[in-house]
Amino acid sequence: MSAAERRIETVRVELGARAYDILIGDGLIGAAGREIAARLPGARAAIVTDENVAARHAAALAASLEAAGIAATTITVAPGEKSKSFSMLEEVVDAVLAARLERGDAVIALGGGVVGDLAGFVAGIVRRGMRFVQMPTSLLAQVDSSVGGKTGINSPRGKNLVGVFQQPALVLADTGALDTLPVREFRAGYAEVAKYGLIDRPDFFAWLEANWREVFDGGPARAHAIAESCRAKAAVVARDEYETGDRALLNLGHTFGHALEAATAYDSARLVHGEGVAIGMALAHRFSARLNLASPDDADRVEAHLAAVGLPISTGEIPGELPGPERMLDYIAQDKKVARGALTFILTRGIGRAFIAKDVASSEVLAFLRTAMLPSGAG
Amino acid sequence: MSAAERRIETVRVELGARAYDILIGDGLIGAAGREIAARLPGARAAIVTDENVAARHAAALAASLEAAGIAATTITVAPGEKSKSFSMLEEVVDAVLAARLERGDAVIALGGGVVGDLAGFVAGIVRRGMRFVQMPTSLLAQVDSSVGGKTGINSPRGKNLVGVFQQPALVLADTGALDTLPVREFRAGYAEVAKYGLIDRPDFFAWLEANWREVFDGGPARAHAIAESCRAKAAVVARDEYETGDRALLNLGHTFGHALEAATAYDSARLVHGEGVAIGMALAHRFSARLNLASPDDADRVEAHLAAVGLPISTGEIPGELPGPERMLDYIAQDKKVARGALTFILTRGIGRAFIAKDVASSEVLAFLRTAMLPSGAG
Repeated sequence: MSAAERRIETVRVELGARAYDILIGDGLIGAAGREIAARLPGARAAIVTDENVAARHAAALAASLEAAGIAATTITVAPGEKSKSFSMLEEVVDAVLAARLERGDAVIALGGGVVGDLAGFVAGIVRRGMRFVQMPTSLLAQVDSSVGGKTGINSPRGKNLVGVFQQPALVLADTGALDTLPVREFRAGYAEVAKYGLIDRPDFFAWLEANWREVFDGGPARAHAIAESCRAKAAVVARDEYETGDRALLNLGHTFGHALEAATAYDSARLVHGEGVAIGMALAHRFSARLNLASPDDADRVEAHLAAVGLPISTGEIPGELPGPERMLDYIAQDKKVARGALTFILTRGIGRAFIAKDVASSEVLAFLRTAMLPSGAG
Repeated sequence: MSAAERRIETVRVELGARAYDILIGDGLIGAAGREIAARLPGARAAIVTDENVAARHAAALAASLEAAGIAATTITVAPGEKSKSFSMLEEVVDAVLAARLERGDAVIALGGGVVGDLAGFVAGIVRRGMRFVQMPTSLLAQVDSSVGGKTGINSPRGKNLVGVFQQPALVLADTGALDTLPVREFRAGYAEVAKYGLIDRPDFFAWLEANWREVFDGGPARAHAIAESCRAKAAVVARDEYETGDRALLNLGHTFGHALEAATAYDSARLVHGEGVAIGMALAHRFSARLNLASPDDADRVEAHLAAVGLPISTGEIPGELPGPERMLDYIAQDKKVARGALTFILTRGIGRAFIAKDVASSEVLAFLRTAMLPSGAG
């Protein structure tokens, strides 16, 4: 490992009294005890993780905490979205209480988005709020879900409908943990990396077009892409912590994406979140072009880049049958980002020029979907 | 009803962006639609209430909301602490989601402390936070639990161990709702009223000594006592919203009180919360005198007033067997206000001069309990 790879990047999330650091670099799981002890002196900890991540990293984390004098208990949940449930919430809450942890102690989320969302919610409600440390081990979690304080579980009525805003005291993104990620999962996380370029960082998108292979290979380019993504998200979150305005920009590609996830019954064999976002971003750019807001060339460029890294860009690439455009519109209308019945979309005026469009006519969306959902792909 | 009784008192809770008004007066259930519509224009609502309160007040509230153009659904839970459970939380969350309410819509808690704690927690976690309106119908809820944003449910490991801080947008305390309260319940709420005098308002305590009969009878003295209590609590909450310091003063009488509630298995036939607080306040003053912090005359005065209104002041007044002093100390040590194993008590230097005492030696507490728990009462 080169010296450059060992460098730790720090991104500050500016939230006043709730401000915190995101550290990004190789080897941070082994350094966790030192970093946490420095920020939360005297705290004990509960590590929340899933079976897969525990097998790879739990022992290293526990050893690091122990070496720093942090007493810790480990709570392991089943991997996958099913753990984002009321029953698992109750179980983990009880385990944290059983460990007799207090408000000043820390819940440490070691894992991907599911673990982070569940553990963060637990930290937010045990004794009305404990300290919380995010240790994301997937690319998606490192660049998206671990930053910004959104936590929660799913309801039978929809994903992420129940939760709290609970900012972590610290985020430790160990880029070395990504070395063992399956490529499909890495790619899915990459969709969110590309998203930040498309929202408001056109130079970053251009850099990704030129350097994505290095990002996939690991090393300094990967750490840079993660840090830049965290900076982009942190800037939006600092402007709008509780999602009353600008933060909706982070949903670029997500309105279509969530509808596709719902339409495929959240079956990860058919579609994972990041793939839905990739298709959604391609559709959002194509839809913007159809509305004469952006050039079709920009939609072409987005599709070309996402396809180059191996991400899907059209509904035709999803295995199995999909509902028709009318039913897809229903899924879109049910998405929680819909305010008081109006259809809100994140549209764009070009690469890095996304904006929040309220009151988009559902007839326009339907007409677009009829064209875009042809088996031949977006048109 | 006199004109004076119809007067509405307003107490402002100064919490910056989360500041809100508490309105206190007769007839506020009937005026709720107007007051809510003025503050949350366009909001729809879910009324959370219990079967007993619903029978008395739900129709009047629903009519008031309808007259103001606020569409509302009513969610009714069983009365009593058992409703502060994970399963009821899940049920009410689902009912709010089923009504398709959004973040800008309101959860209205119509009832006592149980309903307020449960509904506030629901408001805090559905879609990561909805608007919340407290309409307390018990004296305890009007002077204590509806003010300050603490919400939550119980765990098998202890009361109120799971919840969030969720400040309401508005509190409407209809003093007319207290006319139908059983006297034992009114008295229990009165213990918290007296508490505010004992913490830091000696003049208010003296006023209560002179005017408590009028407070029990209703009318302007009752409304004044409630408003003064809300002002007292609001001042403490404004200084320490998240209970990291001064807010612990509000636990005067609660460390002993909670232990007694636990020791009687939360059996309301034997002891209700306010009665535990009354005994706890008498013990806290007697313990302070024993430690030569305060004059025994002040402890006498506290006991005399609480006894005059009909509240218990010694453990000997609790029906049935109690555990011995050693076991009581265990209950005290398990109370969630215990930080990192040290015993923290709210003690006093006299009437209206309460303070937070950290590191109280458990041997001192045990020695005191051995004297105070003699069947002959506090000594």
